[in-house]
Amino acid sequence: MRFDPNTLTSDHFLGGALDILQPAKGYRAGVDPVLLAASVPAIPGQSVLELGCGAGVASLCLGHRVKGLSLSGIELQPEYSELAVQNAARNNLEMAVYNGDLRVLPKELLNQSFDHIIANPPYFDRAHGTAAPDAGRDIALAGATLMKDWVQAAAKRLKPKGYATFIQDIRRLPELLEAVSARLGSIEILPLAARLGRDSHLFLLRARKGGRAAFRLYSPRVMHQGVAHAGDRESYTDQIRSVLRDGVALKFGGR
Amino acid sequence: MRFDPNTLTSDHFLGGALDILQPAKGYRAGVDPVLLAASVPAIPGQSVLELGCGAGVASLCLGHRVKGLSLSGIELQPEYSELAVQNAARNNLEMAVYNGDLRVLPKELLNQSFDHIIANPPYFDRAHGTAAPDAGRDIALAGATLMKDWVQAAAKRLKPKGYATFIQDIRRLPELLEAVSARLGSIEILPLAARLGRDSHLFLLRARKGGRAAFRLYSPRVMHQGVAHAGDRESYTDQIRSVLRDGVALKFGGR
Repeated sequence: MRFDPNTLTSDHFLGGALDILQPAKGYRAGVDPVLLAASVPAIPGQSVLELGCGAGVASLCLGHRVKGLSLSGIELQPEYSELAVQNAARNNLEMAVYNGDLRVLPKELLNQSFDHIIANPPYFDRAHGTAAPDAGRDIALAGATLMKDWVQAAAKRLKPKGYATFIQDIRRLPELLEAVSARLGSIEILPLAARLGRDSHLFLLRARKGGRAAFRLYSPRVMHQGVAHAGDRESYTDQIRSVLRDGVALKFGGR
Repeated sequence: MRFDPNTLTSDHFLGGALDILQPAKGYRAGVDPVLLAASVPAIPGQSVLELGCGAGVASLCLGHRVKGLSLSGIELQPEYSELAVQNAARNNLEMAVYNGDLRVLPKELLNQSFDHIIANPPYFDRAHGTAAPDAGRDIALAGATLMKDWVQAAAKRLKPKGYATFIQDIRRLPELLEAVSARLGSIEILPLAARLGRDSHLFLLRARKGGRAAFRLYSPRVMHQGVAHAGDRESYTDQIRSVLRDGVALKFGGR
């Protein structure tokens, strides 16, 4: 199963360093997987598994920034996992992509453990949300998999002291934090705010298998300059622009 | 059981509007109960129960700001509950103080429900902390009562749509949030940061019985001006100073 090529668009990420095929309609990657990839504390030679990798944007951004990673991904929707395979090849990056349910990982993944697990789970809770008109978009946005299943899969496949990094809608912070607290330690949250002084709408969460450090809540990272929408897409703060356009790492601490 | 009067100090809160007796050694109220009281959305005529009220500082600050409240408190340590009684009388405020364990509330409290429950539970987790040399300080800082017991008592004694407000060390955010998520809704967190850009060290959490609004994480409120400790105690931002000295309300949203 694959998308009709005529329904795909080719989109640039990291200032054109990556060229990604995505369906014109349905779930399309925005800045969130790019921010996720930028925040992962990976070093060359390490292994990374992305849960729910979609068309592969987060893993490929990470593989572009940190050379020599071993990239793997699992994706429930066969059209998207096929697209991730194509996108890896298209960008000269190696990525082992599996089509399947993260609750029932294939043997190839069960036989491995990883230095990093990354995920951008669906943002809306199906119990409270309304179905999207497009089935693929619906699954990507409101998937039926519980947050604790994502965290359980991550915790099981991490090496000792390995890191899990998630990006998620702020509304699901209580649910994700509860699931992570039950299985991982050294939890750190970096909230993301659209503008200075605004409520945070997104957050990055990092935790460590076997970690024992105290919980930390960092100062929110501000996405856009100024206090109101400027009406164009280039209102990003200098730091966020360098993350999105130049592929620079996004650190939790510092500025 | 009461403190030896010779071991007590008299301390001013809210710029001298309140005169509070506290033990010279042991648990002493700082700015945290004042911030807690300032953040409670109470209106005249409502009822408030403080769990673990200590010497009564939070309830008395709230009673000073909002006139005509019905104030109640429960405190495990008899010397402190006695002090709360004295402090209420000393400041011409009415407060019904009970000595007891919040897990086994006295009949007088079980027969009531409240518009607001407030609490400043112990900050350190006994499982990970070291015992303080003073037993009273030890109980106040590292009490054996689990966070979920505090939340359960609050949830049971709240009226429908009533508000629970807590102040707590950031390290216990995961534990408190999990307990609150299980029993209350419309959860809002206001992080408090010592200085601009710093990690948050404290947070205020507000939730509503039967509330259904999405979780909200506000922009952190900054306590002190500048980027480093100025070496004096009057480095507070204008807003925090007005809360601490003038008894002004502290809103979660806005600035």
